[in-house]
Amino acid sequence: MSNNLAYEPLTPESLPERLGKLEAVTSRLGTDHNLWNVQEIGDGNLNLVFIVTGTPGSVIVKQALPYVRLVGDSWPLPLYRAFFENCALTRQASRTRDCVPEVFHFDDTQALIVMEHLKPHVILRNKLIRGERVEGLGKFVGEFCARTAFRGSELCMTSADKKADVGVFAGNVEIPAITEALVFTDPYFTAGMNSHNSLLDPVVASLRANVELKCRVQRMLMKFASNTETMLHGDLHSGSIMSTDSESKVIDPEFAQYGPMGFDLGMVTANFLMAYFSQPAHRADDLADYQQWILSVIAESLQTFRSEFRRLWKTERTGMLYPASLFEEQGQDSSPACEQLLAEINQDAMVFCGIEMHRRCLSLAHNADFEDIEDPAVRAPLEARNLEMGAQLILEADTLVDESVLISMADSYNQRNIL
Amino acid sequence: MSNNLAYEPLTPESLPERLGKLEAVTSRLGTDHNLWNVQEIGDGNLNLVFIVTGTPGSVIVKQALPYVRLVGDSWPLPLYRAFFENCALTRQASRTRDCVPEVFHFDDTQALIVMEHLKPHVILRNKLIRGERVEGLGKFVGEFCARTAFRGSELCMTSADKKADVGVFAGNVEIPAITEALVFTDPYFTAGMNSHNSLLDPVVASLRANVELKCRVQRMLMKFASNTETMLHGDLHSGSIMSTDSESKVIDPEFAQYGPMGFDLGMVTANFLMAYFSQPAHRADDLADYQQWILSVIAESLQTFRSEFRRLWKTERTGMLYPASLFEEQGQDSSPACEQLLAEINQDAMVFCGIEMHRRCLSLAHNADFEDIEDPAVRAPLEARNLEMGAQLILEADTLVDESVLISMADSYNQRNIL
Repeated sequence: MSNNLAYEPLTPESLPERLGKLEAVTSRLGTDHNLWNVQEIGDGNLNLVFIVTGTPGSVIVKQALPYVRLVGDSWPLPLYRAFFENCALTRQASRTRDCVPEVFHFDDTQALIVMEHLKPHVILRNKLIRGERVEGLGKFVGEFCARTAFRGSELCMTSADKKADVGVFAGNVEIPAITEALVFTDPYFTAGMNSHNSLLDPVVASLRANVELKCRVQRMLMKFASNTETMLHGDLHSGSIMSTDSESKVIDPEFAQYGPMGFDLGMVTANFLMAYFSQPAHRADDLADYQQWILSVIAESLQTFRSEFRRLWKTERTGMLYPASLFEEQGQDSSPACEQLLAEINQDAMVFCGIEMHRRCLSLAHNADFEDIEDPAVRAPLEARNLEMGAQLILEADTLVDESVLISMADSYNQRNIL
Repeated sequence: MSNNLAYEPLTPESLPERLGKLEAVTSRLGTDHNLWNVQEIGDGNLNLVFIVTGTPGSVIVKQALPYVRLVGDSWPLPLYRAFFENCALTRQASRTRDCVPEVFHFDDTQALIVMEHLKPHVILRNKLIRGERVEGLGKFVGEFCARTAFRGSELCMTSADKKADVGVFAGNVEIPAITEALVFTDPYFTAGMNSHNSLLDPVVASLRANVELKCRVQRMLMKFASNTETMLHGDLHSGSIMSTDSESKVIDPEFAQYGPMGFDLGMVTANFLMAYFSQPAHRADDLADYQQWILSVIAESLQTFRSEFRRLWKTERTGMLYPASLFEEQGQDSSPACEQLLAEINQDAMVFCGIEMHRRCLSLAHNADFEDIEDPAVRAPLEARNLEMGAQLILEADTLVDESVLISMADSYNQRNIL
């Protein structure tokens, strides 16, 4: 891999030979690559992912594919996204502690990252569908979002470093374009790749007829595309988190870009809400208890975001924004500014949350929480609760002063019969 | 200049020899450079500027200096700003019509632009101090701001083109840093390079004690530094506009950067307001009439911004934001979205306006409108009106629904005795 061969997708057969001379790999798997075991695991749509196991240990090898797998090779995607994923992983590692897999090796030409094999972690979404709990999940999510948001912004970074990094990420056009279309625009008209449960037709028609709603969503698209406040994960959902019963990690930041501070928090909250609304189709016995647990995760993640952001505001506000020279050094308290900013971030997050709740039922990439419910008639009323609450979040985000309002709203929609 | 010599500042003596072989210059000045007349004119702080006249015509030669002239060579500034000025001039030329001087030649190594010599245009600020009127000024300013704002954004540009351009401008760190410090932060504490009329001490102390005001200003700094909505002129004031009695042009976009759509409009409005407040010290006879004329320019520029933005929204909305597929193609009117966006832009502009009104009396680069008033006791009450109105704009921008409120407010402050 180090002799600059042209890009070529790995296969389970070619992998040991091709990675067999990399010290970063052999030091973890052993030098005799004939003894390695290679298992291909699908991660979804955009990449090849292998677990490679040797005698001393195992690693993950992730290689970008030049097209979106989900729709075949008709949708080409640049390989350079592996470069941005590597950028994001290394920045996240320095901004959070033990929150992302460690990178062992990166090969730009092969669009390939060799990284820590997380085990026994599994994809959080699957745990949520199975009704499993993860200790400390809300705290983990809130801290991850607060630390990456704060430490990746000019609240903390020097302006020169942050602007240089915005320049690096400005080269990433096609990947943000996926989010821009699939998340913000396609759900609200009959775009070519859309699909939805036809039983939802009346609800969908009502959303698409709502000009005020679409105006708000497009305003958030403008913020998403133009507001380079911090480096986002860009695709933070329960499929981008891997957990054991008591530990979580964030993976797959290939959609990383600079964007508004509330984006990741809103996206992940939406995915917890969809897990919540889908539960009645996945279990009966402990339904109420488990749903309550999901709501507590949401509440804790939002509370933790605020408390961690406030802590960083006090201890790591070393950037040019809100400098101590204007406040603390004048004997003045800057915490009102922190609270105002948190209120704006929360409001943005709630709108992003509502938008994500819509697109996962209406656009291309649906989520398993709902899709695993085979009977459309069982699925539809649950999706309808999700869609209608999404609309309320978009339209009334300014009334959601804290998570208690959000939690009550979710509880209320969970009892409604919309269809 | 074409043989890649190292950067060297031009002198009136060396200029003809050094530019004498450039076809872009000789075609306008004649091929015998011994016949050229070179006149150095100061443009302020950052550059060498020459008028070079030959038999057939004349050109302006502008060369960046590697330091801020105003404070000697103790404040180094990168020469690359000529590159960004050239980028900005060519983009502005394509987005507006006949609004900026034409570029004839650009030399990156020498940080040098040869451009159209505007004549008989003079710096607008000087005309305003002298009490001269410029026909169509408000319309010109409003159209310039609306066209550059709209056509430089993802309302109009392809996302790929716009993001690539954001990447280009992300390399410009030191120039935005000047604005970030001098405009948004220094005025609000005792920064090293600050100065103000000591008779203003009580007003200044009150501003600097106002935590809410400083929070709002810093929030706007965050928007200025992070919100890459469109390519700004970045330093649009009455010293960056040259006018005859009936024609105007915008010059000096070396502070160009991506930023919020309301920035240029707010800055230029502030400079008109400062021209307005300073008038009682510059004239007596036609004072009321002339002040009224300045207010009419402000009103017309804000009205024109809105009407031109609306026109472009209808005719040139070709970017990914607010696509016709979501609105017009569904038989739905998107103009509510345009009005919401205009309201936000206006509100941002009013806050930027208030901040600019502050920094020109409190920070490093004061403006001649006030500075030409020699007697501090005459100047102070006029500056005080300006400072106090600035504070109201920052604190109550959301109440300024249109220019009539702004005009009434200016009229009211103009009659107050604050000191």
